[in-house]
Amino acid sequence: MIVKHPRDYVIDNLQYALNPKSIAVVGASRYSTKVGYKVVDGLKLWGYKGDIYPVNPRADKVNGLKAYPTVKDIPEEVDLAFLAVPAHIVKSVLEDCVAKKVKIVVIATSAFKEIGRGALQDELTQYCRDNKLPLIGPNLVGMGSPYLDFNCGFIPYLPIKGPVAMISQSGANLLAALGSSQKDHYGMSFFVGLGNKADVDFCEFISYAGRDKDTKCLAVYIEGLDSPDAFIEACQNVNKPIVTIKVGGSKIGEKAAFAHTASENAGTSDAFYDEVFKKAGAIRATTWEEFLDISMALGMQPPAKGDNIVMITNGGGSGLLSCDHFERRGMPMHELNEISPSLSDRIRAYMPMFGSPLNPVDISGTASPIQYKGAFTQAMRDPNVHGIIGSICPTAVTDVDAVTDLVIRIHDTYRHLGKPFIMECQGGNECQEAILKLRDHGIPAYATAEQAVNAMVALYQYGKISKGHK
Amino acid sequence: MIVKHPRDYVIDNLQYALNPKSIAVVGASRYSTKVGYKVVDGLKLWGYKGDIYPVNPRADKVNGLKAYPTVKDIPEEVDLAFLAVPAHIVKSVLEDCVAKKVKIVVIATSAFKEIGRGALQDELTQYCRDNKLPLIGPNLVGMGSPYLDFNCGFIPYLPIKGPVAMISQSGANLLAALGSSQKDHYGMSFFVGLGNKADVDFCEFISYAGRDKDTKCLAVYIEGLDSPDAFIEACQNVNKPIVTIKVGGSKIGEKAAFAHTASENAGTSDAFYDEVFKKAGAIRATTWEEFLDISMALGMQPPAKGDNIVMITNGGGSGLLSCDHFERRGMPMHELNEISPSLSDRIRAYMPMFGSPLNPVDISGTASPIQYKGAFTQAMRDPNVHGIIGSICPTAVTDVDAVTDLVIRIHDTYRHLGKPFIMECQGGNECQEAILKLRDHGIPAYATAEQAVNAMVALYQYGKISKGHK
Repeated sequence: MIVKHPRDYVIDNLQYALNPKSIAVVGASRYSTKVGYKVVDGLKLWGYKGDIYPVNPRADKVNGLKAYPTVKDIPEEVDLAFLAVPAHIVKSVLEDCVAKKVKIVVIATSAFKEIGRGALQDELTQYCRDNKLPLIGPNLVGMGSPYLDFNCGFIPYLPIKGPVAMISQSGANLLAALGSSQKDHYGMSFFVGLGNKADVDFCEFISYAGRDKDTKCLAVYIEGLDSPDAFIEACQNVNKPIVTIKVGGSKIGEKAAFAHTASENAGTSDAFYDEVFKKAGAIRATTWEEFLDISMALGMQPPAKGDNIVMITNGGGSGLLSCDHFERRGMPMHELNEISPSLSDRIRAYMPMFGSPLNPVDISGTASPIQYKGAFTQAMRDPNVHGIIGSICPTAVTDVDAVTDLVIRIHDTYRHLGKPFIMECQGGNECQEAILKLRDHGIPAYATAEQAVNAMVALYQYGKISKGHK
Repeated sequence: MIVKHPRDYVIDNLQYALNPKSIAVVGASRYSTKVGYKVVDGLKLWGYKGDIYPVNPRADKVNGLKAYPTVKDIPEEVDLAFLAVPAHIVKSVLEDCVAKKVKIVVIATSAFKEIGRGALQDELTQYCRDNKLPLIGPNLVGMGSPYLDFNCGFIPYLPIKGPVAMISQSGANLLAALGSSQKDHYGMSFFVGLGNKADVDFCEFISYAGRDKDTKCLAVYIEGLDSPDAFIEACQNVNKPIVTIKVGGSKIGEKAAFAHTASENAGTSDAFYDEVFKKAGAIRATTWEEFLDISMALGMQPPAKGDNIVMITNGGGSGLLSCDHFERRGMPMHELNEISPSLSDRIRAYMPMFGSPLNPVDISGTASPIQYKGAFTQAMRDPNVHGIIGSICPTAVTDVDAVTDLVIRIHDTYRHLGKPFIMECQGGNECQEAILKLRDHGIPAYATAEQAVNAMVALYQYGKISKGHK
């Protein structure tokens, strides 16, 4: 439902959704296959340190914990009430929550506006707003943070710790990102599903993430904005990179977005959202992969202060994929001799005669760690260079491990220069291991050239946006 | 160098490059860090069954094998001569190969036309053409086939067996694909690096792959075509899907393509290549990931006979990413009730009330294997449905293993219907395992919705191309 501006009482209370001291799980089931059981189980399994109060009128105990018939029967204070009860019971539970002075409620339950029960949903929203009880949801999967060992919902994983706060209307895609986090070391500060966003809106979570000390970048998945002006206002007040992905813009997608999270897209268009994101200073990703790739880069690396990007590779083919993709993305590469007078000669010292000191710089498939080091160092130290993409292709003579380790050392040595550094490592299992190790050391690393280019383009875009901020 | 048409003597002799009974490795080194050593070592390591003759005038033995001073000194017949010697020696080795009646030569050596020695390269080409000795290269990484345990070059991996023949000017990108094969189960029939393609051209390898029984799809990476007409002629005569990726189209890429494989792109444009590929009936990929993704799908699945694609997912978000991407790719999805009168009702039986029988079909995050089975079966059996994308999102109650196994059974059961079936499985390690298992069973499976959509779009495009063939 529409909000005119981000509401302070909501933003202030979001701490109780993401860092609660106590949680009532309403609809906690005794049966391990039920979602109501999974919530309590997930909290315990992942190490939640606060108090858990299962609420179930037909049980004395749930998962080893004392259960209460209603929220009102809980003897201690309740920060967060997490509701996994049938839709028709929700209203009475909310009344209990108001009576109990719960700080915030999360409604996981589905079957509201997305199946035509808009009036029922609006009634809940109005009731919560009248009582200044922020409501997250309904129709969502949950939230959590790896920094707090907090996993609250129907969520099989916690992500690894990292810079990105993910705010997602879709539960499925949020779970996909959490899985990627585990598998591909995409680090997060916190995550939250918004579902139908009947009350708490994007703008409020964006404001909260702007203040969160662990969050360096916001990744926002949107099926429909009810309040574009409040969204723009919130984004403009956050001095961190914001990446968005907007779905539901296709003809059939408009209906699917309503059926999924009751998102309304009638009368909007992709161009409208382009304009909203431009005003907001947010960077829009097109595909899910790009959404993850560029939010990671923006969370880990400083912005590029210009478009003098040098790519250093031992594979001419990956260089070609990169420079074509840079041009496709509207940010063509420049030759070394256009970037800096003697850079080409200085780099040539670190390659065989059949290498190419153009740009991309092809130090050839025979490149040793020493040659990589020399080329990287020359590019890093050159004041005209605004950013570096390194690339490792596993030829029969490439020492992937050694090059990975030296890249980490170079990155640490020159971090104070504030130049973005991105790696591409295309190949088999040893390359995947290199990617994970690089990511663990704060270097965005990818399996294809185009992903690395997308990341650098985003860092350049954010350089321009953040300049406008000042 | 230009060829007017694919040459029969070349095509016939390519069997000696990809399935030789005997190989002379000229420039075979005794020192294990040298590339000349790696070639002999790779042949032995990966189980090559034929005879290996190292050629090295300063060694009696190389890697445990008797070495010969020159090719002419080898007492037995030589099918293939693989040259890893300095550029200035190549001509005299070619003379020995002609004298020895070698069937085909591969020149791995770099430092020819790509560094300005075009005249030297042309001289070698002319010499080989005058003597009807096909020359592959120079400036390449090697070739091989997993079906023959054959790995000939500076290549750290063999791919897994599968349907795709990869023909690549770039060695680095070829190695990346071989690594992906191992890591992501991208199966290949054979692979070859073309390098500078001084003599043997794309058209001849395409013709060869057209006849190869293990090849179901051709994946062709191009930095520049010397002979577009011969390329078109060869493609038109191959009744298998052909996927291309063309680099070197950007301003800086044009120079980089010359510096890499002496590829000439002056005066051409992306539009020119679009036209070439259209005439050829080849499908052009934009990014490296798409190149691998769609070639795998075309190698594994039948073409889509129409655009009535049904997507079945337990994640509304992945459905939205998909339908938006289908529209972005110019192939919008249709609602179930447009595709087939009662399909929506029949599928609704397999989802909860908050699921959505639109299309994408959202059977919801609570979907069981039984519900997946019912929905898949309804879509598969409906004669109006031309193809299916299935999607698994790992919610806390999703049995990823069970759904994966049932997908494999459904695919086997209905394979005779000739409908393409593609899977998406977004999430953590269990999803990556599901993807590998599905691929091993002939089902193209991907980690993101957009990749699955790209694959289905390619199957539809090939459906139209192959109809034109008849």
